[in-house]
Amino acid sequence: MKNPVIGKVTLVGAGPGDPDLLTVKALKAITEAECIVYDRLVSVDIMALVPAHVRCINVGKQPGHHSVPQGEINELLVRLAFQGINVTRLKGGDPLIFGRGGEEIDALRQAGISCACIPGITAAQGAASSLLMPLTHRGLATGLRYVTGHRAANASLNLDWQSLASGDTTLVVYMGASTIGEISKELISHGLPAATPVLAIVSATQHAEKRVPTTLGKVGSTELHAAGDEPVLFIIGKVAAVTGVFTDTSSLVENLRERHALALA
Amino acid sequence: MKNPVIGKVTLVGAGPGDPDLLTVKALKAITEAECIVYDRLVSVDIMALVPAHVRCINVGKQPGHHSVPQGEINELLVRLAFQGINVTRLKGGDPLIFGRGGEEIDALRQAGISCACIPGITAAQGAASSLLMPLTHRGLATGLRYVTGHRAANASLNLDWQSLASGDTTLVVYMGASTIGEISKELISHGLPAATPVLAIVSATQHAEKRVPTTLGKVGSTELHAAGDEPVLFIIGKVAAVTGVFTDTSSLVENLRERHALALA
Repeated sequence: MKNPVIGKVTLVGAGPGDPDLLTVKALKAITEAECIVYDRLVSVDIMALVPAHVRCINVGKQPGHHSVPQGEINELLVRLAFQGINVTRLKGGDPLIFGRGGEEIDALRQAGISCACIPGITAAQGAASSLLMPLTHRGLATGLRYVTGHRAANASLNLDWQSLASGDTTLVVYMGASTIGEISKELISHGLPAATPVLAIVSATQHAEKRVPTTLGKVGSTELHAAGDEPVLFIIGKVAAVTGVFTDTSSLVENLRERHALALA
Repeated sequence: MKNPVIGKVTLVGAGPGDPDLLTVKALKAITEAECIVYDRLVSVDIMALVPAHVRCINVGKQPGHHSVPQGEINELLVRLAFQGINVTRLKGGDPLIFGRGGEEIDALRQAGISCACIPGITAAQGAASSLLMPLTHRGLATGLRYVTGHRAANASLNLDWQSLASGDTTLVVYMGASTIGEISKELISHGLPAATPVLAIVSATQHAEKRVPTTLGKVGSTELHAAGDEPVLFIIGKVAAVTGVFTDTSSLVENLRERHALALA
């Protein structure tokens, strides 16, 4: 074989869960896919768009099992491409923001395999739109910041706390369900007020979406009623109170209900 | 009239410019619109999707003219809704990130008008995908931050420089074409190395997209060849060098070309 056909790998952002929040390009990559390699954060509704005959490989965590290590995922993508298969590599959110897409691109390019990438709406964007909550807003937040609360086993969170404890920025914490107590403590000890509004969002934009308004001082002991494996997002900052009525939690919840009703109207 | 029909306003993110990067929901809101109110950052290709009979109102800057003040835009949206018209309010990028969408939502809600919001891919996400450049990457960036370089006339940039000068975060500056010199100087004086890679991107994801690789020390005097009104994005941080080969600019440009060719392959 002089010119064996090598497949191409396209990293595709599946967005936060709602199929209508896929980009036009991502929808096409899913419905016309030859083979799909997907993560646990890709929603059931999005996987339902995949034609029945398409081979789908789940590399996400199964109940009671660990997820496939990143190195093995990289090898799988390379192997499939060398078999001449065009691969749609489907990831929750955006492949290049906390999606380890850069590592997959590196592995593919080192193997001489063509790749492309299609961005996805982040969970924070999806949640903000359904809540009608600005992520930046004059007088409340001059910028937006995404960090991850994930850490390797037994490692400490290696974050620049002094820089993160800036009151003028909306701070979004991904994968922080198990570390939010430590994160909130550090942010408070580096100067962010304990009264800073926090909105915890479980399964953003999906049917099971839950919103829990709280504060930085209380979020560590807030019951999120998340079923363990559901993704949780924390939006920290003045915008999380939406109208500024935050000290009275009941009125905020009422307000969120009202906003949600408006959004659905 | 006891129950006059009041229209609804939907804020829609037009994304970075490429129509294929619209969400499915945004595409529907555009093609089925009754009336569109749009900004100058919405691309020509996206406006071409609007059916010919639909009334389109441009509130963006016209050559030689100022853009419509935000207060007037708010009033226009309220007035149209009270005329019983359903309005698609189309904005570049995401309406809730530097889009002043929060101000429009406030004005609409105060007038008792229903609103909804559809998120959009940010210019940074669009650019990163077309470049195959991760916005976060193990060892290079633990997080991502968006700030705006825009300032009111005669005002100074009121940013938390100490917090921004954090070497582990990818910093994306929007609307900074006229202030990037000041921004880079402040970042360097607060501790970011002058050699920090910077990628300036003009008209991200559009036909006229230009990419200019430089460094924090040089970006203030870098010629961007932007025609004044085109949006410029600055991606500051280790990921901007993509492969780490940054001191040799020619090889980076070659590398970018190669990556782009791959992305288009």
